Amino acid sequence: MRALTILGATGSVGTNTLDLVARHRDRFRVEAVTANGHAEELAAIARAHGARFAAVADVTAYAALKAALAGSGIETAAGPEAIVAAAARPSDMVVAAVSGAAGVAPVLAAIGQGITVALANKESLVAAGDLVMGEARKRGVTLLPMDSEHNAVFQALAGSRMADVETVWLTASGGPFRTWEAAAIARATPADALKHPNYAMGAKITIDSASLMNKGLELIEAHHLFDIAPDRLKVLVHPQQIVHGMVGYRDGSVVAQLGAADMRVPIAFCLGFPDRIDGPAKRLDLASLGSLTFEDPDLVRFPALRLAIEAMASGGRAPCVLNAANEIAVEAFLAGRIRFGDIAGIVADVLAELGGGPAAATLDDLTFIDHAARDRARSSCI
Amino acid sequence: MRALTILGATGSVGTNTLDLVARHRDRFRVEAVTANGHAEELAAIARAHGARFAAVADVTAYAALKAALAGSGIETAAGPEAIVAAAARPSDMVVAAVSGAAGVAPVLAAIGQGITVALANKESLVAAGDLVMGEARKRGVTLLPMDSEHNAVFQALAGSRMADVETVWLTASGGPFRTWEAAAIARATPADALKHPNYAMGAKITIDSASLMNKGLELIEAHHLFDIAPDRLKVLVHPQQIVHGMVGYRDGSVVAQLGAADMRVPIAFCLGFPDRIDGPAKRLDLASLGSLTFEDPDLVRFPALRLAIEAMASGGRAPCVLNAANEIAVEAFLAGRIRFGDIAGIVADVLAELGGGPAAATLDDLTFIDHAARDRARSSCI
Repeated sequence: MRALTILGATGSVGTNTLDLVARHRDRFRVEAVTANGHAEELAAIARAHGARFAAVADVTAYAALKAALAGSGIETAAGPEAIVAAAARPSDMVVAAVSGAAGVAPVLAAIGQGITVALANKESLVAAGDLVMGEARKRGVTLLPMDSEHNAVFQALAGSRMADVETVWLTASGGPFRTWEAAAIARATPADALKHPNYAMGAKITIDSASLMNKGLELIEAHHLFDIAPDRLKVLVHPQQIVHGMVGYRDGSVVAQLGAADMRVPIAFCLGFPDRIDGPAKRLDLASLGSLTFEDPDLVRFPALRLAIEAMASGGRAPCVLNAANEIAVEAFLAGRIRFGDIAGIVADVLAELGGGPAAATLDDLTFIDHAARDRARSSCI
Repeated sequence: MRALTILGATGSVGTNTLDLVARHRDRFRVEAVTANGHAEELAAIARAHGARFAAVADVTAYAALKAALAGSGIETAAGPEAIVAAAARPSDMVVAAVSGAAGVAPVLAAIGQGITVALANKESLVAAGDLVMGEARKRGVTLLPMDSEHNAVFQALAGSRMADVETVWLTASGGPFRTWEAAAIARATPADALKHPNYAMGAKITIDSASLMNKGLELIEAHHLFDIAPDRLKVLVHPQQIVHGMVGYRDGSVVAQLGAADMRVPIAFCLGFPDRIDGPAKRLDLASLGSLTFEDPDLVRFPALRLAIEAMASGGRAPCVLNAANEIAVEAFLAGRIRFGDIAGIVADVLAELGGGPAAATLDDLTFIDHAARDRARSSCI
């Protein structure tokens, strides 16, 4: 019986995780669940899965959570520190599916307890890669990547020595603007950008998929997670999103992971690791698909990817600043305050001003750099 | 320093192995080399690589070998028992690249000495799979597959529990007749059938690639090597031959190995295992390739594959009989005595007559069954 704590239980990764847990009640029990708000939904999850603890980050949702769980015997709490408390509870695995910079503190808390972390929170590695990986190494904690590309690379590495690895490829759908001309991309509307070809995800990550910033952030994640040099990390545009990631070895072999575009594939891998558990995803049928296509990414039409690659190569605080500025710019784009084509320009400006200097050594440092970059980005979005 | 014994040193697998050995003189030394004939070529190899022992299977080539190595201090021998003696010499790895049923005895000899075997001899598993795998398990010997498809599957398995494996796919180029109609295939000439789209190999295996019998024999090999049930083994036609093999897991993940159509990729993997060594093969560039295509095999136009699948499911002596009858039929086709379309019919007839009964339990049994099937096949080829 593996005890799980699920941070971000009401989001897409959280609900897909719970779908798998429900199919394997003999293997998993749920220790704790958290959400940002969505108190009623979280309470229903906590009851259905017999969780012992449920917490919301948003304190204004606390009354609703408490009411919904009255008489259940399930402990409740609220506020960012309650999410950290959930992560630090005794369990076998923390599924870190909180979105945004708020995910870093609970991830550090789980690592501090020596608990395996299944990581679906980008910011933990993009903004705080040095800090998080340093702690994980110190504690000997395994970080299992839950998003499809990093999970693919993890599978393709299969415990290989990194000295034997020549190249790591992350694949990208290319997004809705893959075949658009630069001028058309620049004036794309939120509705255009929200049309992801393969996955239904939140608005922020869907916009990042359209700009290819998402793939850039994933490169930075991969750099930290696999301790692989920036110049060995490549992006390959693959519109069908069947191949999720590949590892090229020094002997000329390439190992890849493939599968349906279903989050439950990488999630099942993490939940079962090092064994495998049955998963409900549609099975791959390459003969029916007929053909898989590949192309190089265009760094001119997709400058956000170029900026992320540069930030990865610079290291230090650049990735944190890139990520923070991008979040604000995407928010402004979705609110109709800036054009799609302005996103990369704003990120570039903020990076140029604030991107120098060492990486955050503490959570406080990180918060300071992150906030400064957001403030500076906001000033460009008015 | 890893000591290698290379059986079949003058063939395509042997010379590619030696190419890699020459690039890694600090890692490998050559203990012994053997060939069927080609005495001068073998002698040159033995001198160039500082082998201690060189043997030819064909006794009529012995005088030439002895003369060519006079004064070198390299021990020489001849005859089938000399190949077995080479395999049994103390070394770290025997590269078994002898072709045909003559490969079984030396493979068993190497296993008997507890030496890791890098296997490029199909017959050891097709005709004698139960015997060879039984001995390997008894001795705890690792069999490393050197041909590209099985090597791909070995890499994609990466030590996984077989209980977690749902499907194993071997890819096939589809051969020169992939798009031909059945009637045209039936009357194809040896020249037509020898046009393999991707690899330059010997005539026998090239004809088998045209009939898809080669893929059928590979399924039988995979069945024994990976201890996977026949109904979990599939063939996928993939004309570009970039993906060599794939493993589907119970969680919906598929892991594949890809690479250029260069034998040095799987050979380098085996030589370096469990680490990796630098290999000279052209690096994979999927963006330049643009597209990979896949289709199901057609068991009506390619009845040899159907026969092999049936023989695998029957088990016992059927695969040995299938292999023997096919060798004779292919020989007859190359000699112009039968049509391409007759090959499968002859194999089917011999299987129907002699394919029942248990698998060979000893090398003598195996030889008896193999010879009986060859004799019966010859009677159909006159």
